[in-house]
Amino acid sequence: MTAPWITYRPELKVLDCTIRDGGLVNDHKFDDGFVKAIYETCVKSGLDYMEIGYKASKKQFPKDKFGPWKHCDEEDIRRIVGENDTPLKLCVMADAGKADWQTDVLPKKDSVLDMIRVAFYIHQTSEAVDMINDAAEKGYEVSANLMAVAAAQEKEVDQALESLAETPAGVLVVVDSWGSMYSEQVEILVKKYFEYGKDTGKEVGIHAHNNQQLAFANTIEAIIHGANRADASMLGLGRGAGNCPMELLLGFLRNPKFKIRPIYRVLQERLLPLSREVEWGPHVQYNITGQLNQHPRTAIAARAGDQRDNYVEFYDKLISDV
Amino acid sequence: MTAPWITYRPELKVLDCTIRDGGLVNDHKFDDGFVKAIYETCVKSGLDYMEIGYKASKKQFPKDKFGPWKHCDEEDIRRIVGENDTPLKLCVMADAGKADWQTDVLPKKDSVLDMIRVAFYIHQTSEAVDMINDAAEKGYEVSANLMAVAAAQEKEVDQALESLAETPAGVLVVVDSWGSMYSEQVEILVKKYFEYGKDTGKEVGIHAHNNQQLAFANTIEAIIHGANRADASMLGLGRGAGNCPMELLLGFLRNPKFKIRPIYRVLQERLLPLSREVEWGPHVQYNITGQLNQHPRTAIAARAGDQRDNYVEFYDKLISDV
Repeated sequence: MTAPWITYRPELKVLDCTIRDGGLVNDHKFDDGFVKAIYETCVKSGLDYMEIGYKASKKQFPKDKFGPWKHCDEEDIRRIVGENDTPLKLCVMADAGKADWQTDVLPKKDSVLDMIRVAFYIHQTSEAVDMINDAAEKGYEVSANLMAVAAAQEKEVDQALESLAETPAGVLVVVDSWGSMYSEQVEILVKKYFEYGKDTGKEVGIHAHNNQQLAFANTIEAIIHGANRADASMLGLGRGAGNCPMELLLGFLRNPKFKIRPIYRVLQERLLPLSREVEWGPHVQYNITGQLNQHPRTAIAARAGDQRDNYVEFYDKLISDV
Repeated sequence: MTAPWITYRPELKVLDCTIRDGGLVNDHKFDDGFVKAIYETCVKSGLDYMEIGYKASKKQFPKDKFGPWKHCDEEDIRRIVGENDTPLKLCVMADAGKADWQTDVLPKKDSVLDMIRVAFYIHQTSEAVDMINDAAEKGYEVSANLMAVAAAQEKEVDQALESLAETPAGVLVVVDSWGSMYSEQVEILVKKYFEYGKDTGKEVGIHAHNNQQLAFANTIEAIIHGANRADASMLGLGRGAGNCPMELLLGFLRNPKFKIRPIYRVLQERLLPLSREVEWGPHVQYNITGQLNQHPRTAIAARAGDQRDNYVEFYDKLISDV
């Protein structure tokens, strides 16, 4: 663990969330060519996991209103990856309160997926525990992703982690949903998650957002303090300010199994064209919601309106709403 | 020093380098209205220093080829700031090997400037010491800015710091010219600079570049380890990938004397329009030169050419040149 910018930990695993988190900017309407390009890039670059979308309820999120990566039906996934005869593991995210997980998460033997990532807000911890148990019983690796942890009370977080510690989840992910965290908060949470997960051998992960241009830095910070699972996305694609950019993370990691060159190719061939159609990145409104530790929804709305360049008005509105 | 994201150190001072570093993207050809807007914003926001440009040699850099902020003649500065009857201190940068400092730096009594920042590469340390002594004798505060320190040998850095420790410079600035540093390197250097400067009571500063989207994070890191002088620029304006964005830094600092709202106004009224004419920011080519610890000149050239979106070609070229 000394000099982490020179050495590497072989157990550190990287997860690409380009399609999953990126789907939040285009209602998950990526065409197959785009998804296949990301998949092939993940394989060529030696990444460990690719998150291909959500398992969202078709009742709440009708199929005719969203692209296929909102629901990740088995046939849609296989159209891209076949039997996925590669070292890359595949996962989806299921949100508490938004997924018919009892039926939509198939038994592992019927799926090409390897891991289910359970996402939940602190008040949904009970359902999350049920979801984690269900996915583990069905045969999957499971990750517990407590969202917006920076907006929860410390006592609540402790109680949630106590419950999660007893589940079969193999990973507890520190999730900075609103991009509000500074490095010292990341350090505190990574250490806390470790403390709760150590008796059952759980790994700690990091999922950072880039509202304050800190997603990459906070990912490094988590890694320095022992996190062995790191999320990133190509060109940082993701909702609002986006995520930790994969091209920066792979430049930092020193494990020669990771290859950065395929990332540059997919950036120029796929992400740059997409960036001319949809917007993401740390624009000033996202700086402000991050600083205020707020959900980015107001910033997303402001960026979509005709006052998108009026930072002062946005700031005044948020400050007076506090 | 505990919980620096909650408390503040009154002795921490912020320097705006928008016009000085930003001048490198437009040959210092800002019109008076732009410079005045930055100046007034610095005053309204409670910033401590504004760096208004360079004191560059008129022989090497003819007046008809550069804007006025390349030379910062006294009459040009006064046209913007008058007698500068404000708490904001003004400074310029003088580069070793590029300045006629003996004649162009006026005695303090004839100038509205408060500080001279001496910039130099490691092999120019001897001239830098002469420049520092000269500026101090003329009556100025002086800052020693050893550039590209991440590309120098540790022994050389130690020797340079030993020489600088004996000068009247009040500040030693850790300068990540190429945006190549990670947080742990920042920590090591800040502590080293402190060690050399402590006997003569020197402050340590940080000047970060954003090649890897780490300028803000590294600035925070330096502050956590005790740096009391931080450089930033509006919307991160600066050469290549740019600097630490002022709008992020002020969101982090907790000293109520700093006001962030005037920053948002100058961003929307001045920086956004400028961003449609000239380019800066952490584009992929800058990520790559940062990762390779190289001067950004190849990246700047690539961004200006018709292959600006060809990241793979750029990467291949740099890797084969190494």
